[in-house]
Amino acid sequence: MIGRTGSVGDLLYSLAVSGFIYPIIGHWAWGPDGFLALMGSDGHFLPSLGTGFHDFAGSTVVHTIGGFIALAGAIVLGPRLGRKFKRDGGGPMLPHDLTIAASGGLILWFGWYGFNPGSTLSAMDFEGIGRVAANTTLAACAAGLTAMAYAYTFAKKWDVSFTVNGFLAGLVAITCPCYWVSPTGAILLGGVAGVVVVAGVEVLEWLRIDDPIGAVPVHGMCGIWGTLSLGLFACGKYGATGAVAPDNSAPLTGLFYGGGLHLLGAQAVGSLIVTCSTFAVAMAVMYLVNAFGVLRVSEEGELYGLDLHEHGIPAYPEYVISALGSPAGSWQAKPETSPVGDRVATAPQVALQKAVS
Amino acid sequence: MIGRTGSVGDLLYSLAVSGFIYPIIGHWAWGPDGFLALMGSDGHFLPSLGTGFHDFAGSTVVHTIGGFIALAGAIVLGPRLGRKFKRDGGGPMLPHDLTIAASGGLILWFGWYGFNPGSTLSAMDFEGIGRVAANTTLAACAAGLTAMAYAYTFAKKWDVSFTVNGFLAGLVAITCPCYWVSPTGAILLGGVAGVVVVAGVEVLEWLRIDDPIGAVPVHGMCGIWGTLSLGLFACGKYGATGAVAPDNSAPLTGLFYGGGLHLLGAQAVGSLIVTCSTFAVAMAVMYLVNAFGVLRVSEEGELYGLDLHEHGIPAYPEYVISALGSPAGSWQAKPETSPVGDRVATAPQVALQKAVS
Amino acid sequence: MIGRTGSVGDLLYSLAVSGFIYPIIGHWAWGPDGFLALMGSDGHFLPSLGTGFHDFAGSTVVHTIGGFIALAGAIVLGPRLGRKFKRDGGGPMLPHDLTIAASGGLILWFGWYGFNPGSTLSAMDFEGIGRVAANTTLAACAAGLTAMAYAYTFAKKWDVSFTVNGFLAGLVAITCPCYWVSPTGAILLGGVAGVVVVAGVEVLEWLRIDDPIGAVPVHGMCGIWGTLSLGLFACGKYGATGAVAPDNSAPLTGLFYGGGLHLLGAQAVGSLIVTCSTFAVAMAVMYLVNAFGVLRVSEEGELYGLDLHEHGIPAYPEYVISALGSPAGSWQAKPETSPVGDRVATAPQVALQKAVS
Repeated sequence: MIGRTGSVGDLLYSLAVSGFIYPIIGHWAWGPDGFLALMGSDGHFLPSLGTGFHDFAGSTVVHTIGGFIALAGAIVLGPRLGRKFKRDGGGPMLPHDLTIAASGGLILWFGWYGFNPGSTLSAMDFEGIGRVAANTTLAACAAGLTAMAYAYTFAKKWDVSFTVNGFLAGLVAITCPCYWVSPTGAILLGGVAGVVVVAGVEVLEWLRIDDPIGAVPVHGMCGIWGTLSLGLFACGKYGATGAVAPDNSAPLTGLFYGGGLHLLGAQAVGSLIVTCSTFAVAMAVMYLVNAFGVLRVSEEGELYGLDLHEHGIPAYPEYVISALGSPAGSWQAKPETSPVGDRVATAPQVALQKAVS
Repeated sequence: MIGRTGSVGDLLYSLAVSGFIYPIIGHWAWGPDGFLALMGSDGHFLPSLGTGFHDFAGSTVVHTIGGFIALAGAIVLGPRLGRKFKRDGGGPMLPHDLTIAASGGLILWFGWYGFNPGSTLSAMDFEGIGRVAANTTLAACAAGLTAMAYAYTFAKKWDVSFTVNGFLAGLVAITCPCYWVSPTGAILLGGVAGVVVVAGVEVLEWLRIDDPIGAVPVHGMCGIWGTLSLGLFACGKYGATGAVAPDNSAPLTGLFYGGGLHLLGAQAVGSLIVTCSTFAVAMAVMYLVNAFGVLRVSEEGELYGLDLHEHGIPAYPEYVISALGSPAGSWQAKPETSPVGDRVATAPQVALQKAVS
Repeated sequence: MIGRTGSVGDLLYSLAVSGFIYPIIGHWAWGPDGFLALMGSDGHFLPSLGTGFHDFAGSTVVHTIGGFIALAGAIVLGPRLGRKFKRDGGGPMLPHDLTIAASGGLILWFGWYGFNPGSTLSAMDFEGIGRVAANTTLAACAAGLTAMAYAYTFAKKWDVSFTVNGFLAGLVAITCPCYWVSPTGAILLGGVAGVVVVAGVEVLEWLRIDDPIGAVPVHGMCGIWGTLSLGLFACGKYGATGAVAPDNSAPLTGLFYGGGLHLLGAQAVGSLIVTCSTFAVAMAVMYLVNAFGVLRVSEEGELYGLDLHEHGIPAYPEYVISALGSPAGSWQAKPETSPVGDRVATAPQVALQKAVS
């Protein structure tokens, strides 16, 4: 949703997302009496499944929800000005700064060691914390490598964006199953996530949905994959974490470890319900905010740049920025309205006018 | 003090700050026999107060001290060349790189989870650590939002600088009371900090004191506010942390929770003494360093830029930097005195002219 | 090895490094039956030494190994195009972005609090963790200051690169002895590391080896120094960490604390064996990878820039980059082969000509 969303719209839909979507849908899976948590037990939802929905640190509850809210936003917003899709002879617009993108990705990776091991909720489950941290690392590495290799097959270059989104995809995927799978499982399910994310980017491109940073493939699609992967890779050794010690008396076992389809079914049901509910509510929220005219900035504001239009100042007042990355070189069309832009804008203006003429 | 302080001066006053001001004044509040720590008990300073000075993780001991040293430095240094204040028809100079500023602010925020929860000094006070971390988060969020909203009222833009300084102000304010207040109290006192910091920037502007990054409002003023806020918001449930378990037998209670004015009085006395002592000593130190002629760089060096003048190299030798942010466009006036600057200015010109011709 | 190594070569030698060199040589020192770990005891290697090789968190096992692999790579690769050494009237090429370099150094420093205290391998050794963290901090500070001061003696500037490499050198050096030395020892051995790293950079310059970021002096040379320093500064109070509590019944004592030459000898033997083995194997690996023609990119690719040549995109498509830092201003010689470079190159060219004329 970046590059075109207004700040007021951001604030408004954030109220809906943080105040209602996350707490209510999250409660379904993580609340002590959530219907997905209790699913499969007598007297509750779908008792025939025999097992509840499991999501250790939030592949579904955090990431799928976030990814499908982003999908709703991208659909309602429409693509950025000047964005042409591959089917129409175009392709993704150039990124702004890959050094910062990769650094940000690594900081997120580091933060994951808070999300995943921290979700044991007790410092006394030593083994669980160690296993979760190791699985998190392995899945991220595997996904980064498969995404890099897969992107190489068509780009013939070692693409930084896909590599970063690859390891993020692995992190999202391992978030649900990190407590219950073996290191081998973590490598395999992470490796698949790296393929899913690259394919997901292509799917969105084909659907003419403009998701500049790949939030939908990374968080939405790999959140679903990670949630399902528990039903395949749960290794049958680990049960539940606890305040003082883990309780492995009722371990989770997935399809590949002889546990049959019960767990996979529960994961699929939970993921489907959460994904559909989130997407439906998020579409309504985005349409509502859009109806007030504050979701997307004006065409002028978008060409001008959100830093100047929304925040009143360029992000780097002293750097000389070329117009290369802006849609159709249109940024320099409005320098006269900028308090500082006229001097910043002079260099690329002249250059691009020359280049065009 | 940035943009005009010489490296030798930096080193000299740092000796005074790290070697004397922090250890001695810090001892008053945190030392086992510090007179502010023992204040209010029989046989010590101001026994009638009935309670000592409290500063959990250092709103006063770390931040007010730091902020008022910065104030002394800014006063003795005087404003940067070319800095005109609002009263004189000018305003703050443009920042250099807001992406890095916001990233640095977020890294500081992250570090605060070491400062504040770590100040329980024992990993066994589980509840205290959790409460402190939650209060720290809530105060930062509240302050960032109120600063952003308050700045919007006059700037009509969502100002990034004020937002970052806002959440930092909330973090500074909650540093003192984080152990003793409720989440509601943390939100309220943080929200006030966001207003204090924006108003503080305006006060310094009016006083014609050039504090480019807002160190005085963030650390100095919000340190005072946070220290006082304990006297208002201490919720009457929590006492002292301990090596094995917390001791809540003598909880702190503020004015708004029925505790009367005792605690507020103790906080005011402690804050006043520390602030005045620090400011007096820091003024003396800064004048002394200035008397040796090493506090401020030469006019030439300042126009030239501290990276070239003090460190011998531009921060980004390959980037093309505009003269926009430098005082009065004066940077390019002196390229002939630079060991490398002539190449910075000349190289792309000549190289590119060659390439075209 | 930066600035000229191809991605395929990177992947190939990384297989050798991660798959063989680190696990095998690391096992010698850290494995329960490693011959360097058991060295000095009856029936094992060099029983007359009376003590084994000690490397708490990896000055040798992590850093010396890494530094000498980098040395082998730099030798086999040869210097970057256009790199002239001081003996030949040249000097180091300009860095790209010192802000990012310093930020990265600080992030590494922060990460060291995971490496060193985390190497106690047990959260129950409270004192050990605290001592290691304190020693790590002191050594880094001392080394940063001595490197800055030493570089000042010849550069007459407060050099940021040397300061950053200085504190990294101190961190590398303290990594081995961090558990066994006193704070005084940490300051002293760190201070020496700051001198070693600056001198090491000059030695490589004299040897005409192009190590752009100083990996060999920081990791290789200061890894050796840190390993030896344990033989000098081990303070005779601390023995081995343990799962539940430390075991200080057989403390390590270095030469300066009356322990004689036994420990110093063991450290020297271990460091020498690891360094020579690593360097020999790494030279073979680098020559082998080079023989396949994939270690170094083509001359065209190097002039063009690795971001464009290997990754297919400039790191900052929107920034205007000068040719200053590229070898002999040669970057703009090939814009016609770039999918985007022609526009990147055009803007400043025309603009600057306009500005000049």
